[in-house]
Formats: sequence, structure tokens, C-alpha cells
Amino acid sequence: MFKRMGIHTAIGLSALVLLLSACSEENVEPQTDVSSDLDSTVQQASAEKSPEVIEAHHGVNQNPTPLDIEREGSDVYINMTAQITDIEIDDDYNYKAWTFNGEAPGPLVVVNEGDTIHFTLENMDPSIPHSMDFHAVHTAPDKGFADVAPNDEGTFVYQASSPGVFMYHCGTDPVLSHIANGMHGVIIVQPDDGYPTDGEVDKEYVIIQNEWYKYNDLENMTNGEPSQVVLSTKALHDEQPNTNGTVGALLDEPLEAKVGDKVRFYINNVGPNEVSSFHVIGTMFDDVYIDGNPANHQEGMQTVGLPASGGAVVEFTVKEPGTYKFVTHQFNHVQKGGVGKLIVTE
Amino acid sequence: MFKRMGIHTAIGLSALVLLLSACSEENVEPQTDVSSDLDSTVQQASAEKSPEVIEAHHGVNQNPTPLDIEREGSDVYINMTAQITDIEIDDDYNYKAWTFNGEAPGPLVVVNEGDTIHFTLENMDPSIPHSMDFHAVHTAPDKGFADVAPNDEGTFVYQASSPGVFMYHCGTDPVLSHIANGMHGVIIVQPDDGYPTDGEVDKEYVIIQNEWYKYNDLENMTNGEPSQVVLSTKALHDEQPNTNGTVGALLDEPLEAKVGDKVRFYINNVGPNEVSSFHVIGTMFDDVYIDGNPANHQEGMQTVGLPASGGAVVEFTVKEPGTYKFVTHQFNHVQKGGVGKLIVTE
Amino acid sequence: MFKRMGIHTAIGLSALVLLLSACSEENVEPQTDVSSDLDSTVQQASAEKSPEVIEAHHGVNQNPTPLDIEREGSDVYINMTAQITDIEIDDDYNYKAWTFNGEAPGPLVVVNEGDTIHFTLENMDPSIPHSMDFHAVHTAPDKGFADVAPNDEGTFVYQASSPGVFMYHCGTDPVLSHIANGMHGVIIVQPDDGYPTDGEVDKEYVIIQNEWYKYNDLENMTNGEPSQVVLSTKALHDEQPNTNGTVGALLDEPLEAKVGDKVRFYINNVGPNEVSSFHVIGTMFDDVYIDGNPANHQEGMQTVGLPASGGAVVEFTVKEPGTYKFVTHQFNHVQKGGVGKLIVTE
Repeated sequence: MFKRMGIHTAIGLSALVLLLSACSEENVEPQTDVSSDLDSTVQQASAEKSPEVIEAHHGVNQNPTPLDIEREGSDVYINMTAQITDIEIDDDYNYKAWTFNGEAPGPLVVVNEGDTIHFTLENMDPSIPHSMDFHAVHTAPDKGFADVAPNDEGTFVYQASSPGVFMYHCGTDPVLSHIANGMHGVIIVQPDDGYPTDGEVDKEYVIIQNEWYKYNDLENMTNGEPSQVVLSTKALHDEQPNTNGTVGALLDEPLEAKVGDKVRFYINNVGPNEVSSFHVIGTMFDDVYIDGNPANHQEGMQTVGLPASGGAVVEFTVKEPGTYKFVTHQFNHVQKGGVGKLIVTE
Repeated sequence: MFKRMGIHTAIGLSALVLLLSACSEENVEPQTDVSSDLDSTVQQASAEKSPEVIEAHHGVNQNPTPLDIEREGSDVYINMTAQITDIEIDDDYNYKAWTFNGEAPGPLVVVNEGDTIHFTLENMDPSIPHSMDFHAVHTAPDKGFADVAPNDEGTFVYQASSPGVFMYHCGTDPVLSHIANGMHGVIIVQPDDGYPTDGEVDKEYVIIQNEWYKYNDLENMTNGEPSQVVLSTKALHDEQPNTNGTVGALLDEPLEAKVGDKVRFYINNVGPNEVSSFHVIGTMFDDVYIDGNPANHQEGMQTVGLPASGGAVVEFTVKEPGTYKFVTHQFNHVQKGGVGKLIVTE
Repeated sequence: MFKRMGIHTAIGLSALVLLLSACSEENVEPQTDVSSDLDSTVQQASAEKSPEVIEAHHGVNQNPTPLDIEREGSDVYINMTAQITDIEIDDDYNYKAWTFNGEAPGPLVVVNEGDTIHFTLENMDPSIPHSMDFHAVHTAPDKGFADVAPNDEGTFVYQASSPGVFMYHCGTDPVLSHIANGMHGVIIVQPDDGYPTDGEVDKEYVIIQNEWYKYNDLENMTNGEPSQVVLSTKALHDEQPNTNGTVGALLDEPLEAKVGDKVRFYINNVGPNEVSSFHVIGTMFDDVYIDGNPANHQEGMQTVGLPASGGAVVEFTVKEPGTYKFVTHQFNHVQKGGVGKLIVTE
């Protein structure tokens, strides 16, 4: 690819930039005397592993940023970041994810029906605009979900007027790249009058389904099969696990309940492409609220179909101690990671 | 592939048939002295572009036929055509579609609950039988949806006894070819007692989702990914746009509403293969009637899952001026064209 | 493909072993003096046809075992087998299926809401553990759905406390292999108080949708398209047909009804991977109970979306004599076999 005369120089410079990027956060002095032969090997290996990492993201791995959310009456102030953070989505496979706050799915947001959300997005990505599309709000998207430039921030105000389990995601073009690279999450809008079954529920968790594709490969995202289909959880209460969308995350960090508990899952299938057939093995859903709206009540369901970006509240009772796995019952997706477990003890 | 000795003769004859087909409608005398070299070039280009155009359709491009619908009391007389018409489904890509009335999706049909439909299909296709399967009616399919021979016509009578947003399509074998090549559309059966939310609605539109595949390639239709996934609209009222299922149609001819309007979409996913996850960005559906039946009411949904041939009435409020895109939230399909927009002004 | 010298011998021996296999169930003594060279040839030929038949299943074809079900009050004793049985899933294509009782889908099980199920699984498979996961019951899956070793049996007790049309399947890892190879079926739990429309129903049938993939090819099951998508029926009443999931089964053995009948279908899409869009041509569903629960009532639907493992009760009226086909309206799947028919006579 390089003319023979220029090869060492070209690789040397390219590698130097790579090293500078990789080191920039730790303020380590860049080495300048690495042999170009070694550099060449490193760069090639990196390229093979993730051929589509964009230039400006090479070596960038921004530490996760805790969600910043504060309430004053019914005004909720939420600050989030768009940032580039390595997520280990499978054993020893780090995906340089485009994220909200360094998590993928992003941090769980919980507000109340009727709240006014004052949302600020700080775009820490050095090179690409990002944005926020909350399915929970009413706003003109070209204004309320507008792009925020690299290293810039934007503030938006809107109402959360309808209860449910909503997806949020980056809405910047091409949206498929932004969602598939990790910019998705869940915002729960708690109903004013609660759910009719609130009094029966003993434990509650959040479960999110998402897919991963070949790294930042829009062609594969558009026409290919997902490489991984994963379930994750976000802590709804302090003691709960909080995972990324990693194969095996919910097997390594199982959820917990006691015999006789009625368990509620807030679920959303953030896609970006596939539908979900959510099922808990060994039980069935006594109560289901489609998209999490208390008005959309169904009973006695073995499996809940979720369109892409669809949500639900599902409730079930665990009557015996043991291990209950939950899956998307599209079992090709289980094969790719779409499984978690709930441990029930006496 | 040809023996060397015979190549000119073979190409010459093949090209002659092509020319005869292409010219037959305009009664132009076939040319017989075209050099085989030129013929070869033309034929090859044509073959590469649409390798599966059947012989009798070469050069056929029948002008769209306006829908012919008349009412006498509760008897509705509908005349439609099956015809071969070029549809530009993407920039500079004409698809020689098998259509109803020269549109794909076909023209919108609106009747009332309880109507008797007297339906006549004129099959203008010179070579293939076609038929009409209205999901809105009760009839024995082998009689009411029977094939109509090329250049023939058939009349059928049936009741529209249940309200909803129904798919119609050609039901001739192989049905997949007929639907995927363009023979689909929507018939709305308006409920006798209306929808409970009729009084709140300010604007109403029809939205149809369909897929396109490699031209008339049954193998690709059966096992491949769609080439295009598109949204179109059919004019429900005189001033509204009426588009084919063309990539970008609903971006070029956006829908319109005013701030504060409650907007109703009658939607149907005519497939033929994929399910849909219908969503309007920047708002949510206050009211949903699954398959368009007033009895199947749901509230506060971010996204409505539509099976193949599934319909719905969805209603939402736009509170701010701006541009609201709507999509199937299966974003690989947005990448292929599955997006439209609604402009909201003060 | 054969060396010239060995061709006649090789074919002769291959046929011999084939005969031996076919006879093995009738207690024919195995021959022990076949030369190892010849064995190798035979095995290779067989492997080419179905490359993933596991060693211990070669030549195994266990006769179907009738379902053994007995009731004492509200205690129901069900004995089923896991067994290896050839199923002709398409013309002249025998699939050495992993089955329950030698059928795929397995035999229909019908119990009443509130029953206690005493379930025994006899694993006749010589080499692989199997298990039973009834979606209809509450149990800790690691105990109630535990693996049963080859040539062993296991008994499990649980309640069927919620009415519906439930999937059952083998839950042994990898579950995808076990379901896709044929270990799936339907258990109906009849509601205590019936369905509100019980009094209107004249005929009732069970319809199951499943997919087939390349023989025991987990990679194809995980990333490929199904080879066949089929509809089958299981006899709910004595005179009804009972089919396997064979292409054309429900065209060769159509269902029957009389003009004016209200027909009920208990349907389930056992997958393992695909969703279904169930539709009956020429009519629509007056009443639908999602997942078969009487509480989940919908009306006037053209098509019912079923997630993987989702069920429904659908009811429709046939008003004219003729042939009514039913399909999944994802027409690529109809192309692969997903169609059946109902003959309506005066």
C-alpha cells in the first residue's frame, strides 16, 4: 500500500500518533524510539481486530462518568455524557463503544410522570456529533434531540408526560451506527398512580436486550446477523448489579429473589434491529403492562413480544428455590448470549 | 457459453425478440437490421439491470389507472386493474412492478363497515394471472379471490363486516412474487360507531410499509435481505400527497400538521416478509387501535409492533413546531429507506 | 468420487449396512465381519448426506410411542419419551429428529387449569441427555426441568395454574439444537371458566408452526435461514388428523368445517428462532385470546403476531363453502412450507 521508499516513515508517524492517543489520558510521555517494525505489527493487529475504529478514536478510552441527576420539585436536572469507552462485550473482546456515560447500555434514568426534564449532553467524543432521543418525551426532534458537536454541550427541556419503560438513544445520523455501537439505554417514567399490582411486588429489576455487530461496520449492521445478542441489568436500587451488555453478564452476576416473591422486570429491547420474545423459564407472567403503561394490562403470558425499542413491565412469582434463567425465546439469540439468571433462595 | 460458430446468430435472434416485445404496444415496426454487436450490448445491460423481467413484460410500462369506486347506498362498486408499470423505487432505479392500478402500494380503498363490495379486477398483464385478496372481507378464497387470466376480467362480491386497516394483495401463486413485485395495498373499513377518539383528531394520514427485493428473484425474496424497506402514503383527503413505495418519498413529500394537532396514522405493514416496529420520533402514541379495530385499544405506546400484514390506528399529539420523522425502529430498515417525516408548523 | 476399482463393492456394502440399520429394530443380528475399509466408505457417504448425525444415532430410528396420560381427580400422570425417530419433513427427505414420543412437534397434551402434573420422561436416546420444559407450569428449572440421562428416566411434579396455549420443549443445552432438531410441542391448559366465546364454537383444531434447519448444524441454526417453515396439527378430538411438521402436511390432510361454523384454532409458534404472523385467508379473527388466556381478548384481527414460543386462541367464521388456506403472512416462510388448508362444505 505504501511506496517502498516511504514505508518506514509512514508507519513510524502513524504509530506515533497512535501512541500519543493511547497515552494521552495518563500523561505518559510518548516514546519516540520504537522500531518501526514493531509498530507496524501492532498497528496491523489492531486494525484486524477492529478495522473500523475511526482515526480520532484510536487509543481513546474515556473513564465511565457517573450519572448526574438532581431533582427540585418536579424539575429534574440530568447531565449525561457522550463518550468513547472500551466495553468488554465478550470474553477478552473489548469493543470501543460509543456510549452514554461510558456504559452500554447507558445508565438507567428514572423520573416521574409529569416531570420536567432539563437535560444536558456533554459530548466528550473528539470527532463525532451525538445527541439524545428520549422516547419518553414530547419535543420537536430537530430541536429537542439536536446534535451536539464534539467537545461541546447542549441543554434541552421537555416533559415526561406518559408512564412507561422507554428507550433512549443517540439520534444522530446514521442512527444505526450510533445505536449499534452502544448509544442506547432505558428511561423509566413512573406512573402517577402506580401500577395496579404495585402492592404485590417484592423485587424489581431492569433488563435490557441489545445486539452487537461487527465493529462500526454499517454494512454488517444493515445486512448482517448480530454477532452478540445480550441481556443486561441496570441497578434500580443500590444493592443491585449494574452491568454492560456483555455476553454472560447476567450469568456471572445473577439477580436474586426469595421463594414466594413476586418479581417485576422493567424490560426494553433496544435493538437496534431485532425483535425480542422475552421469557422467564420455569414461570409465567401473571401481569404484563405493554410498553410499561398501566392501561395496557395482560395476564398469564408465557412470552412477551417486544418490537425494536418496545418495552414492558412483566411480573411473575417464583414458588421454589433454584435457578431461573430468562431469555429471548428466539434461541439463535440465546446462542449469541441472550440469557441471564435469577437465583431464588428460601 | 455459445459455440464460436453460432454466437452471432444466437444473439441476433434473441435481440430480435426483445425488440419485438419492446415495440409491440406502440405498433412500431420491428427493426431487422440492427447489428448484432449493438444488440449484444443492449441485451447485456438490460439483463444486468433486471435479470428476471419475464419475456412478455419487456418494454411494457402501462400508465397508471385511476381508482374507479362508486357507491349506491351500502353497495360499493370498485374497479381495479392488475398492470405492469415502472415504479422508481430509488433514485434512478425503475422497478418494472406488478401493480394494482400502476401504483405500488396500490391505491387506497376506503369503505364503511357493513358495505357490500362489488369488485372487478381487469387484468391488463399480457402474460400472468392475477387476483385480489382483501383481508377485509369474508369469502371462500378459491372463489372470491380467484385468478383472473391475462387480458381478462373478473367480478367478485363480498361483505366488509369488520372495521380496521386491512392489507390487500394479489393472491396468485407464488404469492411471494406477486406481493414482493408490488401487488399490495390498504383497504380501510371505517367503523360504524367510529373510534372513541374521533372527536380529538385534527389530521389523518395513511402510512404503508413494504419491502423490495432483487427484481422478481424468488430465491432472493425467499432467503435474502430486502434491498429497500420503504414507507409510503396514500391520499386520504384530496390535498394530501400520494406516493409509491420509493426510498425518500416521505422525505421529499412530507406530511403536515399544526402545533397542538392530534394526528392519526392508519398504518399497515404489507411486508411481504418482515415485521415492523412503527415509531414517531419526538412523541408517543396516546391511543392505539390494534389492526384498526376500536375494541383493541392501547395507550401511551412508544412503538407499535406490526406482524407482516398487520395494521393499526395510532394517534399522537405534536406540541412544538419542527420536523418529526417516523420510522420502523428496526434501524437496519431505516438504513434501507424506512423513514418519513411530518412537518409541524405554528 | 470412488476409485474405479472399488466402486461396485463400495455401493454394494453401503446398501447392506443401510439394510442392517433398517432392520435393527426387528432384532436382526448384526454382522460383524464387514471390512473396515468398506465401513469407512459407508460412513462417509452417510456423513455427506447428513453430516451432523451423531455417531450413536446412526441407524437409530425408534418407533413412535403413543402418549401415556391418565387422570385421577386433578392429578394427571403423563409419561413421555425422548427418542430418535426419522420424520419425513419434506418429500423424500427424512430428518433423523430428536423427538418427544417419535413426533415432531411432539404429542398434544391437554390438562385443566389447577391440575397437578406428574410427569415422567423416559430418555430412550442412547447418547444424549434430554429434559422437558413446560411453559405451562411453575417450577425451579434446575430441578423440575432437569436433564434425564440416556437410557434413564426422571419424574417431576408441578402445577398447571394458568390457562393458555403453551409451548413445551427440551431444555437441555444447547437448547437451540434440541428444539431445532424436533423437541417441541404444545400443552393446552383449559381455563376453569372456559372462554367467553365457548358457546359459539363449532370446530376446534390445534396448529403449530416450527422451523427446520440444516441437519443438527448449530452454526446454521444460529446464523442461517430456516430450510423449512411448516405448520402441523395435532388431533384434539379422535377423528382429527395428527401430523408432523412436514412441508405440505396440512395440504395433504386438510382440516374440515361446515358453512357457518365458528372455528377455533389453538396456535403456538414453537420457533425456535422466527416470529409468526398467523393469518387465515378469506376470513378474519372475530375473537383472539393472546397466549390463550381468556383475559387477553382482542377482536376483529386480520393477523396475529406470535413471538417465538407465543400462543393464541383465534376464532373465525367461515361463511361460504370452499378452500381456506392459512399461513404465516411472512411469505418467505410460506414459500418454505408455512401453509395449510381448511375445507368448508355445505
